[in-house]
Amino acid sequence: MAFRASLVRLNRAIVYTQNGEPSQVLSALTYKPLPPPAPDTVNIKYLLAPINPSDVNVVQGVYPAKPSLTSLVDGHSDVFVGGNEGLAEVMQIGSGVSGLAVGDWVVMTKSQAGTWSSARNVGAMDVLKLPRADGLTEVHGATMTVNPPTALNMLTNYVTLGKDEWVVQNGANSAVGQAVIQIAASRGFKTLNLVRKRPDLEELTTKLKDLGATEVLTYDDLADRSLTQKIIKDWTAGKGIRLGLNCVSGPDTTSMARLLGQDAYLVSYGAMSKQPLSLPTSLFIFKNLTSVGFWQSRWYKTHTRDDKEKLMQTLVDLVAQGKLKAPEHEILTIPARDSDEVAGQKVRDIFAKIAEGQYGKKVLLKIESSQ
Amino acid sequence: MAFRASLVRLNRAIVYTQNGEPSQVLSALTYKPLPPPAPDTVNIKYLLAPINPSDVNVVQGVYPAKPSLTSLVDGHSDVFVGGNEGLAEVMQIGSGVSGLAVGDWVVMTKSQAGTWSSARNVGAMDVLKLPRADGLTEVHGATMTVNPPTALNMLTNYVTLGKDEWVVQNGANSAVGQAVIQIAASRGFKTLNLVRKRPDLEELTTKLKDLGATEVLTYDDLADRSLTQKIIKDWTAGKGIRLGLNCVSGPDTTSMARLLGQDAYLVSYGAMSKQPLSLPTSLFIFKNLTSVGFWQSRWYKTHTRDDKEKLMQTLVDLVAQGKLKAPEHEILTIPARDSDEVAGQKVRDIFAKIAEGQYGKKVLLKIESSQ
Repeated sequence: MAFRASLVRLNRAIVYTQNGEPSQVLSALTYKPLPPPAPDTVNIKYLLAPINPSDVNVVQGVYPAKPSLTSLVDGHSDVFVGGNEGLAEVMQIGSGVSGLAVGDWVVMTKSQAGTWSSARNVGAMDVLKLPRADGLTEVHGATMTVNPPTALNMLTNYVTLGKDEWVVQNGANSAVGQAVIQIAASRGFKTLNLVRKRPDLEELTTKLKDLGATEVLTYDDLADRSLTQKIIKDWTAGKGIRLGLNCVSGPDTTSMARLLGQDAYLVSYGAMSKQPLSLPTSLFIFKNLTSVGFWQSRWYKTHTRDDKEKLMQTLVDLVAQGKLKAPEHEILTIPARDSDEVAGQKVRDIFAKIAEGQYGKKVLLKIESSQ
Repeated sequence: MAFRASLVRLNRAIVYTQNGEPSQVLSALTYKPLPPPAPDTVNIKYLLAPINPSDVNVVQGVYPAKPSLTSLVDGHSDVFVGGNEGLAEVMQIGSGVSGLAVGDWVVMTKSQAGTWSSARNVGAMDVLKLPRADGLTEVHGATMTVNPPTALNMLTNYVTLGKDEWVVQNGANSAVGQAVIQIAASRGFKTLNLVRKRPDLEELTTKLKDLGATEVLTYDDLADRSLTQKIIKDWTAGKGIRLGLNCVSGPDTTSMARLLGQDAYLVSYGAMSKQPLSLPTSLFIFKNLTSVGFWQSRWYKTHTRDDKEKLMQTLVDLVAQGKLKAPEHEILTIPARDSDEVAGQKVRDIFAKIAEGQYGKKVLLKIESSQ
């Protein structure tokens, strides 16, 4: 059994015992060092874990995937540990585990693993080794299993796009949207990126074009019939766009769907407008539109380990080639010296700010543990 | 070259030269006997041709499939001949045609063939021989290429249902709906049939159950949460229904979609509510719903002659086994002795009645020609 001296430490996790607003129900809980790992499991140390929008929904109790109750502290009631995505380092390996070594970086393929913690024991099959590569930072690794694979899978699993073919997406400034722009550009696809009208539109357009966006338009622009005609007639030689990616729904998505051509796919992965996806039935009947949803958690459940390793390798290669940037971010470190009270307050405060929409950047948690 | 003496006759067709309400723009036009068929074509005599709802939309000019302009009378301006579906008898066969004999029954696999006419010359590849069978009437044959294959394809092409598995459909009293009930029953599938609340609900329920419907409910019934819970929990053992068929759209279809389970397909073939298909995005993302459209015209375009022959054989077999009844119908005969003026008025009158919703029954045209 491999062993690393630094394993003996006190740990901490961000937990909750009942659903509610994260700024109300989250707290920090210190727990004892992990025992040596059981067969087929590994002890890992989380290096960095993001706060994703869906994490908020999980804590609120309105997301379809729920974490399991966990006993972190003997005699203490069981808790839910927050966090779905994260980068960890392998600290200690149980018997029967192959393909992992102490010091390896791993990411989670089991959802709701409780990544907002310092160290955990996990099933060896629930993590995936993340190959190291030049330029691959902890931030890349910690944000590698949800948004970039969502973008890659949506771009490749439904329609086989040729070089210079168009894909249209809304919410183009989202984390997935930015990954879509970069991955599409790396494959020679053109992207039509739709965003809300906003004061800093020019700045945002420049930012997205720097990432590789071909065109950036607002939803309001689509009201201009001569423009939409031009998109269909000139840009796509009358064929319309064959792939649309949706994280908005509501009326703006209905307008976007009119840009789609024969046999197109509309792939939804979110509904930021909180309105339904409403489409003319004629698009389905006469244009053979297929409307589907994509959920990366389902992809992990329904694919083999080999598929998952290939997916990670593809994304790591893109990072190494400089074609997939880490998201704009800010790291909140919870130092080991903080009391649980102080640590919990820091976390609740950051969620209050996120709820107010004060963060355009991705926030990642770095939860230190005492040696 | 085969030949039948009765071919030499004057013909008549129901035509229009501009789009509009059928009760306004349709007229009858007499044209001369057909010349002998060119190679690879056949001369056919229409025995019976239905008036389908989509035919009205074609004449109005609001349907995606449009007939070609045809010259029926020398020196007369070209016209559009109405009618998409129909049963014909082969009268004369051009050189190079195989697999067809004089006297054979044929149906149309090319859309908008102009079936509201007495005799026409058609490409041999645009018709399909309809096998004769005990109990197969002209009405069956004339209504065999649109509604029953739509029902059969929707029931079998998307989800592989097992015996006793449920399918839910709205507009269950439509021609397709009634075919769905019968074909589903013949395969051992259970049907949940949704219809509008109406004074004669009990009578309609009895009629649909006589056809093989398992359950008949109204859209209003779906507002009852305890009933929908029962459908999902008790009827489908918590799995939900895997196939939904939609010809209504609008809010009632949103309610229907909530009965669907994981990995279900919602197949749309109409939108009688004239409202969009509006669905919660979460159904797509978390329940893996796929929403598609079905159009039998596209099926014919994208399938082989062998596929089409198998489809017709399957339907004819169902008729022969007494498992697929002809629709309730009324035949409007246009006698050869009528002048074009009188004939045209009869046709316009029937369309005026159809537009007023006075026909629950399918109306079929029998256009006689003079000997």
